[in-house]
Amino acid sequence: MPLPCIIDIPKDSHFPVENLPYGVFTIRTGDSPRVGVAIGDQVLDLAVLEAANLFNGPELTHKSVFAQDSLNAFMDLGRPAWLEARSTIQELLTGENPALKNNAELRHAALHAMDEVTLQLPVKIGDYTDFYSSKHHAFNVGTMFRGAENALMPNYLHLPVGYHGRASSIIVSGQDVHRPWGQVLPADSDTPVYTPCRLFDFELEMGFFTAGNNELGHPIPIDRAEDYIFGFVVVNDWSARDIQKWEYQPLGPFNAKNFATSISPWVVTLDALNPFRVPGPKQDPEPFDYLKPKDHWSLDINLDVQLQTEDMDQPHRIAESNLNYLYWTPAQQLAHHTVTGCNLRTGDLLASGTISGPEKHQRGSMLELSWRGTEPLELPNGETRKFLQDGDTVIMSGYCQGEGYRVGFGDVRSKVLPAL
Amino acid sequence: MPLPCIIDIPKDSHFPVENLPYGVFTIRTGDSPRVGVAIGDQVLDLAVLEAANLFNGPELTHKSVFAQDSLNAFMDLGRPAWLEARSTIQELLTGENPALKNNAELRHAALHAMDEVTLQLPVKIGDYTDFYSSKHHAFNVGTMFRGAENALMPNYLHLPVGYHGRASSIIVSGQDVHRPWGQVLPADSDTPVYTPCRLFDFELEMGFFTAGNNELGHPIPIDRAEDYIFGFVVVNDWSARDIQKWEYQPLGPFNAKNFATSISPWVVTLDALNPFRVPGPKQDPEPFDYLKPKDHWSLDINLDVQLQTEDMDQPHRIAESNLNYLYWTPAQQLAHHTVTGCNLRTGDLLASGTISGPEKHQRGSMLELSWRGTEPLELPNGETRKFLQDGDTVIMSGYCQGEGYRVGFGDVRSKVLPAL
Repeated sequence: MPLPCIIDIPKDSHFPVENLPYGVFTIRTGDSPRVGVAIGDQVLDLAVLEAANLFNGPELTHKSVFAQDSLNAFMDLGRPAWLEARSTIQELLTGENPALKNNAELRHAALHAMDEVTLQLPVKIGDYTDFYSSKHHAFNVGTMFRGAENALMPNYLHLPVGYHGRASSIIVSGQDVHRPWGQVLPADSDTPVYTPCRLFDFELEMGFFTAGNNELGHPIPIDRAEDYIFGFVVVNDWSARDIQKWEYQPLGPFNAKNFATSISPWVVTLDALNPFRVPGPKQDPEPFDYLKPKDHWSLDINLDVQLQTEDMDQPHRIAESNLNYLYWTPAQQLAHHTVTGCNLRTGDLLASGTISGPEKHQRGSMLELSWRGTEPLELPNGETRKFLQDGDTVIMSGYCQGEGYRVGFGDVRSKVLPAL
Repeated sequence: MPLPCIIDIPKDSHFPVENLPYGVFTIRTGDSPRVGVAIGDQVLDLAVLEAANLFNGPELTHKSVFAQDSLNAFMDLGRPAWLEARSTIQELLTGENPALKNNAELRHAALHAMDEVTLQLPVKIGDYTDFYSSKHHAFNVGTMFRGAENALMPNYLHLPVGYHGRASSIIVSGQDVHRPWGQVLPADSDTPVYTPCRLFDFELEMGFFTAGNNELGHPIPIDRAEDYIFGFVVVNDWSARDIQKWEYQPLGPFNAKNFATSISPWVVTLDALNPFRVPGPKQDPEPFDYLKPKDHWSLDINLDVQLQTEDMDQPHRIAESNLNYLYWTPAQQLAHHTVTGCNLRTGDLLASGTISGPEKHQRGSMLELSWRGTEPLELPNGETRKFLQDGDTVIMSGYCQGEGYRVGFGDVRSKVLPAL
């Protein structure tokens, strides 16, 4: 049974009392940004609750972490403070603590309609890392480029392949993306051309924000990984496939990925996601000990991608997937990242890589859905797509299904704008 | 002729009045960090000069940018402020402005012996990018792994290959580095082992810090690149060659590079380096227009690497090189980085990649110097090295030779500590 709430939660809302994801918002242009929690169709202003001294447990009393333009100060406090904040907010919203329920003035000050606020990038991101953790995705891409027998590189089943991404160009849902220019090698040519990207793609991913700073030189043991995981967002890792193909040897993707990465605005905490843990995938060969947790968990998070072209009246679902299709789990990604002693910092983002499932309709990129353009996607209005065209809007979303409620991520939505 | 100075500048000092590199330092443990300038064997405390209202030109009056723990606030002000600060400091140190020369109390407060201060990381680094701009290096590495005929990838002469690096683990000279653990594929095996890195290497590089924020989606034209270049440091991009070889397909180096990157503590401004501009390298094929500046410049910066094992009494020079051996110039790196619309921010670091020259003694890594271990390096005390061993100290340095003075970078020095 869902928990009660002092405000109405629409059916199938992503944001019931069980969720309480954190974001950063402003009410009017020029206002100071502050931290809020999504609840139904509204945003609960934590700066107002903090000023009213409602965060009065041992971890949060006299702290000033919500009248801030990012979640970083709150994230820095660690899980005891996160759990205390979660309890405090849940008690206020269920009415177990009547301080909000019985105070009309406070409710008026602290609750804002979600469609009247502007959501910002929730975290000041230090480093951004992108993994390649979906075996289905790696297999699909490898098959297209090297054939099914050589699809997976020899390292793939031994370690979570990853690379460093670009943090500066991470943007929040709602910010549109210009098609980038770059160098591309035309088919049957040995001379590149300078052109707007022609094979523009999305990648359906999820990412988690880390909190806490391990000392440089000191790996984080896998069984302590979740101490460093604050929460998750949906990630659209925009990709310029043709630029990537020309540039990526020998050091990996650079310009093909550095122009934009979009994330959903609400950070859903691991604490809200814990009820949706599922056993991690079977792994053969057996991983090294540093990748072998006592508790091998993944998360059952339904994901989907919708596309709306300029000629369509409404979005159309073009792919479904699930976080639990990943071959390498979040904890394994984190442990591998730090095995050399690499230091994580509060606000780092570790993304999964494209999350494809085993079925054809579970492919998380246009590259895979159209099989490199050879099987164009047919849309309900008769249009077809091999890759994204200008004016196309991509909407990704995700949720966990509870009994009578959903813990969801909202959308990450962005339109492809023409090259400048 | 060198400029005069109110304090003695030792012969061949890297820090005469012509240089004035910026760093961040503390005097005693627990002190607030502040911005200083290296002058001879001393450090000029700019926070003291700022408090004494000596920065009183139009750009810097009433600014508070030097009582800071990083250069970022100063860098954010842009070149007019940088030039004004440079003039003010130069006038004070030459005695043209007698305010420092004639005030013993101020001199006492503002000048500290360099060996009595602790130098910190000078910049809060946002994103770190590492290029692969030395054709000699790319050719050497490619020859070792693919043979001379296939040494350069087809893209190499068309664009400055680069990849995103790890910013969190950038450290300053003097901080030692533990040999990292990781996965390695032994020769003649198809199963990796988990081991301390066995092929531990340095890479002699230079990097520049950017200042200013271009809008996402809007490339920086190459002829405006230098507006965004604040200054340069020497970079030791530590590399775990065996970890890299196993992990790097298909997305590039990750763990092999994420455990540490060392930089020299003093940021030498482009304004101090401008007298040492030289024409950029001849490039064939001709680059695309976006990579073709009106003024194609590089810099004549002498570089070297010294090695001192635990059994040696003093360091021994094992390599020399020069920034002007790069095939792709700093301006070309910056223009290529942003051609997709990628946004740079104040404090980003763009490093060159290993700078090797055409000669054998000009190779910027152990991989090249020992030709993959086949030609061990002989040291003066009879020891040999294929790669770095525990206890080895690597010291890199660089300088520009003026008439009667040097504009130098000091050292980046770090010892290899055993694996933990």
